[in-house]
Amino acid sequence: MKRLTLGLAATLTAIPAVVFANDAPADLIETGYILTTLLFLMGGFMVFWMAAGFAMLEAGLVRSKNVTMQLTKNMGLFSLACIFYYLLGYNLMYPGDGWSIDGVLGAFSVTSLEPVGLAASDAALDYASTGSDFFFQLMFCAATASIVSGAVAERIKLWPFLAFVIVLTAVIYPIQASWKWGGGFLDAAGFLDFAGSTVVHSVGGWAALAGALILGPRIGKYTKDGRVVPFLGSNLPLATLGTFCLWLGWFGFNGASQLAMGTVGDVTDISRIFANTNAAAAAGAIAALILTQLIYKKADLTMILNGSLAGLVAITAEPLTPSLTGATLIGAIGGVIVVFGVPLLDKLKIDDVVGAIPVHLFAGIWGTIAVVFTNGDASLGTQLYSIIVVGLFVFITSSVLWFILKMTVGIRVGEEEEITGLDVSELGMPAYDIVK
Amino acid sequence: MKRLTLGLAATLTAIPAVVFANDAPADLIETGYILTTLLFLMGGFMVFWMAAGFAMLEAGLVRSKNVTMQLTKNMGLFSLACIFYYLLGYNLMYPGDGWSIDGVLGAFSVTSLEPVGLAASDAALDYASTGSDFFFQLMFCAATASIVSGAVAERIKLWPFLAFVIVLTAVIYPIQASWKWGGGFLDAAGFLDFAGSTVVHSVGGWAALAGALILGPRIGKYTKDGRVVPFLGSNLPLATLGTFCLWLGWFGFNGASQLAMGTVGDVTDISRIFANTNAAAAAGAIAALILTQLIYKKADLTMILNGSLAGLVAITAEPLTPSLTGATLIGAIGGVIVVFGVPLLDKLKIDDVVGAIPVHLFAGIWGTIAVVFTNGDASLGTQLYSIIVVGLFVFITSSVLWFILKMTVGIRVGEEEEITGLDVSELGMPAYDIVK
Amino acid sequence: MKRLTLGLAATLTAIPAVVFANDAPADLIETGYILTTLLFLMGGFMVFWMAAGFAMLEAGLVRSKNVTMQLTKNMGLFSLACIFYYLLGYNLMYPGDGWSIDGVLGAFSVTSLEPVGLAASDAALDYASTGSDFFFQLMFCAATASIVSGAVAERIKLWPFLAFVIVLTAVIYPIQASWKWGGGFLDAAGFLDFAGSTVVHSVGGWAALAGALILGPRIGKYTKDGRVVPFLGSNLPLATLGTFCLWLGWFGFNGASQLAMGTVGDVTDISRIFANTNAAAAAGAIAALILTQLIYKKADLTMILNGSLAGLVAITAEPLTPSLTGATLIGAIGGVIVVFGVPLLDKLKIDDVVGAIPVHLFAGIWGTIAVVFTNGDASLGTQLYSIIVVGLFVFITSSVLWFILKMTVGIRVGEEEEITGLDVSELGMPAYDIVK
Repeated sequence: MKRLTLGLAATLTAIPAVVFANDAPADLIETGYILTTLLFLMGGFMVFWMAAGFAMLEAGLVRSKNVTMQLTKNMGLFSLACIFYYLLGYNLMYPGDGWSIDGVLGAFSVTSLEPVGLAASDAALDYASTGSDFFFQLMFCAATASIVSGAVAERIKLWPFLAFVIVLTAVIYPIQASWKWGGGFLDAAGFLDFAGSTVVHSVGGWAALAGALILGPRIGKYTKDGRVVPFLGSNLPLATLGTFCLWLGWFGFNGASQLAMGTVGDVTDISRIFANTNAAAAAGAIAALILTQLIYKKADLTMILNGSLAGLVAITAEPLTPSLTGATLIGAIGGVIVVFGVPLLDKLKIDDVVGAIPVHLFAGIWGTIAVVFTNGDASLGTQLYSIIVVGLFVFITSSVLWFILKMTVGIRVGEEEEITGLDVSELGMPAYDIVK
Repeated sequence: MKRLTLGLAATLTAIPAVVFANDAPADLIETGYILTTLLFLMGGFMVFWMAAGFAMLEAGLVRSKNVTMQLTKNMGLFSLACIFYYLLGYNLMYPGDGWSIDGVLGAFSVTSLEPVGLAASDAALDYASTGSDFFFQLMFCAATASIVSGAVAERIKLWPFLAFVIVLTAVIYPIQASWKWGGGFLDAAGFLDFAGSTVVHSVGGWAALAGALILGPRIGKYTKDGRVVPFLGSNLPLATLGTFCLWLGWFGFNGASQLAMGTVGDVTDISRIFANTNAAAAAGAIAALILTQLIYKKADLTMILNGSLAGLVAITAEPLTPSLTGATLIGAIGGVIVVFGVPLLDKLKIDDVVGAIPVHLFAGIWGTIAVVFTNGDASLGTQLYSIIVVGLFVFITSSVLWFILKMTVGIRVGEEEEITGLDVSELGMPAYDIVK
Repeated sequence: MKRLTLGLAATLTAIPAVVFANDAPADLIETGYILTTLLFLMGGFMVFWMAAGFAMLEAGLVRSKNVTMQLTKNMGLFSLACIFYYLLGYNLMYPGDGWSIDGVLGAFSVTSLEPVGLAASDAALDYASTGSDFFFQLMFCAATASIVSGAVAERIKLWPFLAFVIVLTAVIYPIQASWKWGGGFLDAAGFLDFAGSTVVHSVGGWAALAGALILGPRIGKYTKDGRVVPFLGSNLPLATLGTFCLWLGWFGFNGASQLAMGTVGDVTDISRIFANTNAAAAAGAIAALILTQLIYKKADLTMILNGSLAGLVAITAEPLTPSLTGATLIGAIGGVIVVFGVPLLDKLKIDDVVGAIPVHLFAGIWGTIAVVFTNGDASLGTQLYSIIVVGLFVFITSSVLWFILKMTVGIRVGEEEEITGLDVSELGMPAYDIVK
């Protein structure tokens, strides 16, 4: 059976987790096992809800002619992530004594979680059920893929995108995640990334950046005389709903990354994480609200939404050690980064439809660096080194993969199809029956 | 007090639930009671969320002229299910020593759950609170009614539909549910249906089929020369959101049907169920994605959504014993069933607006049969026998009921009203202020 | 550290909470601490979901030209509530030995929740983590502010509205909440308000009423010849979704207000609360469904939605002691109140865009009074006295605040801006790209 203690476990070392001590009474071990497993299950279904959040956010921010396609991509990417993380990714991410063809391809499908009706006496072997850990980790992998789809929206073909998702979730994400959460070399070097500002969000952001660069911008987005043409979202209530879904799911994303709920210390830490996560999101939203009012003389809802998400990404690398004031500041800076990051990308003519790169990559880097301000165990050098190593790996492998897809099957729809909109031209199904 | 152990309890027999042993220390009994009650409450609010899911799915798949009506029906049916399951259904479903007029009509409203401030010493009497069990079971009854509303949409009158719902939730659903989950003759015969592929989903599907047959198809759906006219959904983001809501809720639907969380074995089983449920949904979606691409040369979002739901329905009869690979296959076949089931119904000129019959009835039958592949206690004969007995009972009683309603108050709106759309003609309230 | 026992704690006195007894074994104290903290976290994220619910409900009920503004207000008010309740409100609400400048401004940001890695031995000091209590209480404060935004929609300026929210969440809400939940004079007088029919819902309602009066009605709502012009909602699926979000969140709102989950008695009470809360919502919806059919000959979806919400508000003051039948009746009367309250306000030319005043204020008063029918500890005199004291305080302070804002920066957009719609005129961003 896969050892759960390999998953994100470095964070556990700082926690007085008496439950695992061999001399604890059997009933406390049992209760700890149940509560920690419950934490993974709750965390898992909350992060699952982020898949709905990404789908709604992206469907609301693309133009109405590309909504069905965006929804199809989100349903497809999540489902494929579920299957391929199971077939390959989970074993790649927790190599145990090392990767082997047998271990990667065979093990998980054979042992297939714990036997039904596990006896209580087996509880001493582990501290939570493997099934719950798998369920929880799977959702992180899927979230990484969701980040990509928004950036490359409105011009990418369906199937090449899904092919990219398969490689991302089966190979690229798990390999780099193993470096930290699988107990690999970044973990050994002292890299700290509690719930994945780098391991999840920056990774999604790098893959998105590579895709946006190789795809090129949407037709008409940047004019020859250097103007940026604003393409307004088609359905802002949907985008706002998506943001609320993500915000809700993030409590599970960060909170359950405590990886244990069987002791007073653990559940108290989870409470801090909930409060800090919420404060960072709120601060990111307010920063964007104030800044857009000051700069553009108008509050900008899409910036506010992305500001809250950037606050969430920023607090993700270390949601536990900051005070509420610290979390508020970390989140607020995330919001600031988005307000300046979105026009920066436009200046570089990198067309990121939903702002995924500022939110997940830029704020993810910020959050990973910010760990050093509140966690004495963090080293700036190690954080920067890890950001660069992960970034290079993901950006290079993603670029190669996008490039191969471009050269073989092609990744971009035809000009006419793009202007018509992908819903009708590619799928034959408009998203709304009320048409202009 | 109603004995909880009557509810879905056959599944418990295979589980080493040491909590219930009389020689367990009092504190473990208490903790087990708390955790299992918590499981029912969490499961209940997650299945509640499926009511939102059905409402959004159906509102997104009907044409925009019938959206307000579809929402009104969903609010009404859920609320009526809550009241009538309480007044009649819950007592009918768990007859205890047998049905009596007194027991059915009076008992529940009189005892009305446990007394406030139940003493810890009462915990030995039962293994979870009756209130939590009622709350959880209620949501299953309401889900059954939700299944019907989608199939008969866009032409049925509001009040006759709600009258049907009252009889369905107060009488038809509880009686057949008592046969299995109330410890009745199907349970005694060895019928296995963990969370209700038959008891919930097929039942909703049979009632929907009876309704769709007696109502007849929508005007213009089938032309005289035999063509099927596609009526596109009005709001696909809404339909996708509904699917995500249902998928999320299903973790509670299947997971909490374990009916206990007080032991290591139980929570480990719940983890398996979560992972299997998710795999089946993903596989159903992917099967529909690939199949529609192969058959129609275009990925079909509504098929993908229904494919994931069919995967969920299929795994519901036995989400525990399959391996992840098994769950993936069971779900994938659910997706295949939908892709072929929807055009099959159209060929038979049975107009099922949202695809509820393929998803809940066809995939429900498949899931009930599939139990025999992974659970050694299942017998194909008993599964088929139970499918047929429940099917005959529900289809006949539903048909009689629909027919009586048709002959007395009438169930179908006038031709002009149907063409105008029910929102304006019946309710005087369009769903959107943006009109064609 | 802030003493949790000050929060809503009067309700605890009736509960045999053996966990807190000093002679309970250490492991039971630990388990109780974990379970109660978990209750606050779950309750908190469920009430958070109500913020999404308010945003969707309001975005669906305003006209499509004011949707972006309504969403911006909801994102802004929730985020500001998070920050200002933390900076000021939480300390104001639980004054402990009395308010002091030091205590109010400094304490919380300095102690900033518990230290990371709290030792198990500290558990004896308290019965749940302060962080989880803060997180939970924060959401109640934010909900109060959300109530206001719907009533004053479609004509109020963004920034004056947000300024009002800051004072409401930092000062007005916490001060009156301290009178009951902070152990103040209303609590001492025997006022009973389990989860806040008065402390939350009426307070939001009074603030909304003051705002609606001082703002005046929308242009064109009331004609010179005395007619009321119906302004239909722009997106009823969104409004329905918002209602489902609120309904779901209310399980946490009422259920977690039990404030403890470490004993059999507590979790059993929470189960009663879940079942009663659900029954009241269903009954409110059905009452509105039947009444609008009888009065207007047409079922009215927006009344049904508000009916369910009024049922929820009504049961909030006492969701524990009623039987299911009692809860059903209390909720049904809530629904009746809405059906008569909405036209009453129109008759008085008070323009409440979403019906927030009938739902939260009228049904909140009803629910607070209804406590006397099922809870023997309640006194009608004390309930009425408390309703009046809180009402006067909130209505007067809110009116003064709205008036100051009106006299200084102005609270209402220009006539032309209002007719154009706030999305384009104030924010330059329509909510939908499909325009009339």
